[in-house]
Amino acid sequence: MQEMSSKEIPVVLTEKLDEQFFQSRTSKRSPIIFRGVDIGSCRLKWNADYLADAIGDHEVKIHVSSQSKLDFVNRNFLYKSISLKEYIRRSSQAPGLPLEEFFIDPHEKYYLRSLGGDVRKEVADVHKQYPEIATDLNLPYVFSADRFFSSVFRIASPGSQLWTHYDVMDNLLIQILGDKEIIMFPPSDLPYLYLQGDKSVILDPDNADLSQFPLFASATKYKSKLLPGDIVYIPALWFHNVKALNFSVAVNMFWKNLEPALYDNKDVYGNKDLVPAARAQQGVDKALKALDNLPAAYKEFFTLKLISRLQASLSGSS
Amino acid sequence: MQEMSSKEIPVVLTEKLDEQFFQSRTSKRSPIIFRGVDIGSCRLKWNADYLADAIGDHEVKIHVSSQSKLDFVNRNFLYKSISLKEYIRRSSQAPGLPLEEFFIDPHEKYYLRSLGGDVRKEVADVHKQYPEIATDLNLPYVFSADRFFSSVFRIASPGSQLWTHYDVMDNLLIQILGDKEIIMFPPSDLPYLYLQGDKSVILDPDNADLSQFPLFASATKYKSKLLPGDIVYIPALWFHNVKALNFSVAVNMFWKNLEPALYDNKDVYGNKDLVPAARAQQGVDKALKALDNLPAAYKEFFTLKLISRLQASLSGSS
Repeated sequence: MQEMSSKEIPVVLTEKLDEQFFQSRTSKRSPIIFRGVDIGSCRLKWNADYLADAIGDHEVKIHVSSQSKLDFVNRNFLYKSISLKEYIRRSSQAPGLPLEEFFIDPHEKYYLRSLGGDVRKEVADVHKQYPEIATDLNLPYVFSADRFFSSVFRIASPGSQLWTHYDVMDNLLIQILGDKEIIMFPPSDLPYLYLQGDKSVILDPDNADLSQFPLFASATKYKSKLLPGDIVYIPALWFHNVKALNFSVAVNMFWKNLEPALYDNKDVYGNKDLVPAARAQQGVDKALKALDNLPAAYKEFFTLKLISRLQASLSGSS
Repeated sequence: MQEMSSKEIPVVLTEKLDEQFFQSRTSKRSPIIFRGVDIGSCRLKWNADYLADAIGDHEVKIHVSSQSKLDFVNRNFLYKSISLKEYIRRSSQAPGLPLEEFFIDPHEKYYLRSLGGDVRKEVADVHKQYPEIATDLNLPYVFSADRFFSSVFRIASPGSQLWTHYDVMDNLLIQILGDKEIIMFPPSDLPYLYLQGDKSVILDPDNADLSQFPLFASATKYKSKLLPGDIVYIPALWFHNVKALNFSVAVNMFWKNLEPALYDNKDVYGNKDLVPAARAQQGVDKALKALDNLPAAYKEFFTLKLISRLQASLSGSS
């Protein structure tokens, strides 16, 4: 059995994270952890009680699952609405103890949905949605203001783990309270990750079944533990999987690192493929549809030929 | 170094080759050699002198090359017009001796072009083009008359070798005079053959440079020697490479084994991709064009995603 390649995400110590410093450390568009950045009073003030008091009356949408590994492909979770106060109370309870109040299972796990005020139209913006705590947060704006897309609250219960996926925008994950484990894979690992859309069907990258997913052995895993105050840069297209090790509060910032016109303007999550990529996908869907009525052997042959054409374009451009 | 997989094309002895017998031996659409079939008086009568007398006044188009391995991709040959008498005289000369009259090289090789009477519009039909010798030939019609596409004269000088390619129609190669070596690869070997269009860039499948073409080591070679009177079935999509071991005369018969509407009606050679396949290719070309203006890393990523989509459709259909 092939030993899977594993790397650490590099850590840079810095108090100040501005656009210039950020650019100097990310010219290769690889992940990096900035540690020691002054992110404001949230680092000291935020805990379950403070947040419940300050913003507890907001209603939130959450994922609820009896399993710690959320599975988007097979939907092993429900969406529920709940007050943030109640959500924080449940999520911050000591892990391992059964919940007194629950939706489906006394050991159920939670993960906040990242939604704007008007779910279908607005992107999330922590400052707008939670003005009560906005001044606690000193977010690092490492990009031009007009490229800002969204800032998203991430509150998770201990052990909850989000599916491996990629986003099309650059992204800073600012860990504020609690610890997380992050696993990343470079964009070139796409062929080894068994995607459905933007998500991998491999739910546990630390214990993948290689007889079911043999190509996964060729992937290169970047793995690190995030501590409170850590800011990790997740470049667009890098696959990532995040697990809360305890009650965890974080904020994500997404921005459009490419020409804004390239992004789908109906995208509220920042994970829809770029406009040209969606068009390309349509071209391939049409191609497959054209072949659909041929006998299986012909369909397979001409599909192989299309793959070969695409592969040739890869080697041509590199 | 991986040892390349090699097989013999099976041989069936039979005097009579009709549609029913043919179907019974080719239900798996694999190549097969029919030996001993009565193909008419051509087997005894045809030689260089007879053919020069009977049809020598016809003008033909030929490939001329100083190299034995014709290379369509790099065009190492010229097209010339010449009388069939002269063509036969040169092609049937004892191999190794320099030609007295030649176009480019006293050791040049020849291969007849397969063209109809009106080069751009008509498909080749041996009976129509060469009525003088039509009655010598007893061609095996193993398909309904309305599926017939073309019959093509193949006259080649010793050592000349045609590029590895596939055709989209089923095909019988009827060896009449001289010996040939035929190498075939199944359609599923497409990813290993470094195609440009319908042709492999590997000119010598017996001595391929595996450092340049590493995937070729995964191909499965079917190899056989064809003797006068042999009829080899070359199923549509099977790659084939044919070398004349001496002065060689053969006839090919192509027919539309699928619904006739699926074939490109501007195709005079029988090697244009099926209409749905050409449409599929256009879809993929559009897809690549859509990605063209993205930064290289994004283009590569979304191309990998398209490949992965096509590969998923393959495993879905099998």
